[in-house]
Amino acid sequence: MRDLAKRIRDGDARALARAATLVENRSPEGIELLRELFPHTGKAAIIGITGPPGAGKSTLVDQLARALREEQKRVGIVAVDPSSPFTGGAILGDRVRMMRHHADSGVFIRSMAARGSLGGLAAATTDIALLLDAAGCEAILVETVGVGQDEVEVARLADVTVLVLVPGMGDDVQAIKAGIMEIADVFVINKSDHPGADRLAREIKANLISPRPIVRTVATEGTGIADVLAAIRSHSASKNRATIWSFRLREMLRERLLERFSSADFAAAAEQVAARKRDPYTIVDEWLKRFEN
Amino acid sequence: MRDLAKRIRDGDARALARAATLVENRSPEGIELLRELFPHTGKAAIIGITGPPGAGKSTLVDQLARALREEQKRVGIVAVDPSSPFTGGAILGDRVRMMRHHADSGVFIRSMAARGSLGGLAAATTDIALLLDAAGCEAILVETVGVGQDEVEVARLADVTVLVLVPGMGDDVQAIKAGIMEIADVFVINKSDHPGADRLAREIKANLISPRPIVRTVATEGTGIADVLAAIRSHSASKNRATIWSFRLREMLRERLLERFSSADFAAAAEQVAARKRDPYTIVDEWLKRFEN
Repeated sequence: MRDLAKRIRDGDARALARAATLVENRSPEGIELLRELFPHTGKAAIIGITGPPGAGKSTLVDQLARALREEQKRVGIVAVDPSSPFTGGAILGDRVRMMRHHADSGVFIRSMAARGSLGGLAAATTDIALLLDAAGCEAILVETVGVGQDEVEVARLADVTVLVLVPGMGDDVQAIKAGIMEIADVFVINKSDHPGADRLAREIKANLISPRPIVRTVATEGTGIADVLAAIRSHSASKNRATIWSFRLREMLRERLLERFSSADFAAAAEQVAARKRDPYTIVDEWLKRFEN
Repeated sequence: MRDLAKRIRDGDARALARAATLVENRSPEGIELLRELFPHTGKAAIIGITGPPGAGKSTLVDQLARALREEQKRVGIVAVDPSSPFTGGAILGDRVRMMRHHADSGVFIRSMAARGSLGGLAAATTDIALLLDAAGCEAILVETVGVGQDEVEVARLADVTVLVLVPGMGDDVQAIKAGIMEIADVFVINKSDHPGADRLAREIKANLISPRPIVRTVATEGTGIADVLAAIRSHSASKNRATIWSFRLREMLRERLLERFSSADFAAAAEQVAARKRDPYTIVDEWLKRFEN
């Protein structure tokens, strides 16, 4: 394990891949490794990239990684797939586009599967980001899909959150507003050469409580990427790391608590409840007593 | 409390409103009440209505409630708002449209706020549905917003889940597919008089592993509502209640475990971790020991 930790700190891609699997499987070795590496982390900025499907997030991540590489920065990319909670996840088509970084030893890409109902995606994402941090990545781009609760959780764990929108969304801005608008530190209007970019900028401004940067991009052409990076950097400096760690600790605790229960526990109790032989409130009370022994 | 339970079973709207507040605030009285009412539940079908913003979910819920009222069924509506995790939630504009049911003593409407990072929305929604069940509602329509993880959780707790889509969504079906498509029992193509309805139906079929009913509606005109109800009923009969209770029990347990920790616990630890004075893995280990004493 000590050897693996050393190889990770040296930026060995194979060691990182092995460690990421240990961590994603929540194995005790993975936790031990993270504990060992933790003092060597804290240099990377974790940048969450979120927004509705079709907004061009993958292309933006691609361009940001390219720009960071031009500055000789080591870059980590964590792509959170919107995979099925039943089948355990599939690689999205647009991940293939990112593959061209694979030849570059300064970019590490990890695709993560969404988890089942026990959650833990946000905690696992944080752990993978810490591995990449220990490996010397100065920026870790975490791309989520959609704008649901899962994305809000992942966004809260990032140092800076970028919300990518596109013109012509209509009423959808209203819906997005309620969830993730408050959490975004930087707004990107991608495909800003499309009609409606000005209107979208006005709508975003109208819905913001405190001012935040709004940057226009055409990610497919690389336009505006330097501005996005500048906005990220200016916000990264101002964000309170302790607040972010408070969210991260909650996620980690939640996950560790629920791993003590098996599917069989839930299945047996569910049969009794469905038949109205027992009530669920009393059963949960009994489960809580398990922790006390 | 016994008196409140009796009034709820008699379908007293004021008692229900008070109980819903107790339950939503997760007060001990609320849990006690649910425990008392639980043996009198199990008659209602909990019907989740989900889909992307703008698909016409509220209108569909409205029309389904109307159709059920024509059959003299008592109806519950639980509207889950996509409210901000910071401000605690707002009533959506389109809730106003549903207000016209308010004059009808056979329809109970409860709007629920989304919760903070500790979660519990799905558990609270289930509890409110049980209250409405005990009050004699034969159908409880739970409307969620969006297609994120939160919606997947709520959908899993429903007896039947209806996914509402509209023509002209383009690539978005691909994104929705991965998350909630597998969980939907009934597909509704709303605004089916718009171009692209046939194409959407084909896309849905192409993405389904097992066949499910696909119903076309124009909810604003009441077209297709009877077909949606028929599809819901046919699926409601086939669904395994124990499987659903297994998801519900997990949610309930998760919520009860995390309520033992305060924000101050997390804040104090987060300061130390952010400063790299301690590692988060060791802190969580110590928190787990709390349960053992």
